[in-house]
Amino acid sequence: MDVKARDDIYTYAKEWVLEAGQKIRDVIDEPLTVDIKSNPNDLVTQMDRNTEKYFTKKIRSTFPNHNILAEEGFGDKLETMDGTVWIIDPIDGTMNFVHQKRNFAISVGIYQDGVGEIGFIYNVMEDVLYHVKKGQGAYKDDVQLPQLDNGVTLEHSILLINSTWSGENKRINHKKVQELVRKVRGTRSYGSAALEFAGVAEGILDGYISMKLYPWDFAAGVILVNEVGGETTQADGSPLNFITENTVFSGNKQVTKEIIKNYIELY
Amino acid sequence: MDVKARDDIYTYAKEWVLEAGQKIRDVIDEPLTVDIKSNPNDLVTQMDRNTEKYFTKKIRSTFPNHNILAEEGFGDKLETMDGTVWIIDPIDGTMNFVHQKRNFAISVGIYQDGVGEIGFIYNVMEDVLYHVKKGQGAYKDDVQLPQLDNGVTLEHSILLINSTWSGENKRINHKKVQELVRKVRGTRSYGSAALEFAGVAEGILDGYISMKLYPWDFAAGVILVNEVGGETTQADGSPLNFITENTVFSGNKQVTKEIIKNYIELY
Repeated sequence: MDVKARDDIYTYAKEWVLEAGQKIRDVIDEPLTVDIKSNPNDLVTQMDRNTEKYFTKKIRSTFPNHNILAEEGFGDKLETMDGTVWIIDPIDGTMNFVHQKRNFAISVGIYQDGVGEIGFIYNVMEDVLYHVKKGQGAYKDDVQLPQLDNGVTLEHSILLINSTWSGENKRINHKKVQELVRKVRGTRSYGSAALEFAGVAEGILDGYISMKLYPWDFAAGVILVNEVGGETTQADGSPLNFITENTVFSGNKQVTKEIIKNYIELY
Repeated sequence: MDVKARDDIYTYAKEWVLEAGQKIRDVIDEPLTVDIKSNPNDLVTQMDRNTEKYFTKKIRSTFPNHNILAEEGFGDKLETMDGTVWIIDPIDGTMNFVHQKRNFAISVGIYQDGVGEIGFIYNVMEDVLYHVKKGQGAYKDDVQLPQLDNGVTLEHSILLINSTWSGENKRINHKKVQELVRKVRGTRSYGSAALEFAGVAEGILDGYISMKLYPWDFAAGVILVNEVGGETTQADGSPLNFITENTVFSGNKQVTKEIIKNYIELY
């Protein structure tokens, strides 16, 4: 992506992310209507939809040639990552948004022909913005994030993994996951993929594993983690697919390699 | 406990908790020496020890007749909860403290003849203080916490549980835990028992289950959760023991009852 064009897109996107966050904060204490989607725990609110519409409207009027892939369906039906693609989760961690009114994020990743160029993860209630331009550093607000310590071993790492995956499930051998849970120093689960990626990029968590993420859950996170020298793949080590659901592993390279080699047995 | 005496103790304790937190923030970016205790993942730092010594010194000089039960061993060897007992975790969530430099708390619970009278949970890096005097309301900073909604059902609850307990372990039938994980709306794990209790008391999380907690992990949390109408017991429903290690379940009464009845099978 042309540097001038990218700076231009970055500037608009940053303004929109911050403004969308402000709109959410303005009404955070008002009553919510919560609807369910694919299952009773897959929640959506008017605020998810309004935020997504805010972005799609801004993008379509400012960058009419760009494509949009977004969680709530106001974007385009994409079959490829050709061109400039905005991948948007208007509220990542909707369950936290509904139950906690915090611990959720706006996630925006911008790709050029499949390459991650710009990413934003905005912790709305804490007003903390993680942002990245490929090759120009990843930042938490104004502070540049250091490169990950790729020497951290599995025994000394804290892994993000939900209890779901150490129980019987259709995607992964949970016995191997249980071995992994016993092997690492500790596990955490925060309920927002975007904020979990941000934690990995910040180096305060060493790996994140999920058996079910959509592109809008990881589009920004992947760019952020890449920029600090980590890597993100499907859980078997193969490249991510931005058009469909994925298994995902993200982390420092040492931990990623060891986990994929010894603990991941997909069905 | 006499009201005047309690107010007096509360005032001192609050001042010490805030001051101990400030001391930690002052040196948060300095290098740490990390030692291990019972196992390689049971960490302790000089900061845990210094903070505990700060409290024991203050308590012994101001309230020489009070007893102290504290994580790092500078308190007393107690065999009963008779009299006034301070139960202190100088840094709850030491692993978070070491790896993340955030998401840890100072926890202080003060008991009179086994009854919880005063509690503090201080999220040091966010500078947020949860505090309670029995019968006078639980607070997050200056805001009183409302009573828990004891009508929340299991299907709609978010449960705090670490992945450890849905894998094979010596304490609980993990198959039943896996059923529980599938039953609830979602699970989280933050790595600080005190902050997890605070989340339950705040009503943003509906239950917290752990198979291994010490009195300093839960002493303040129990008082906080009680005050908003929740309850805390051993995982089989029996009363907590403040002298030894415990299994613990804390939450709103509906959820507690249903989980203990249907999902807890201790070995």
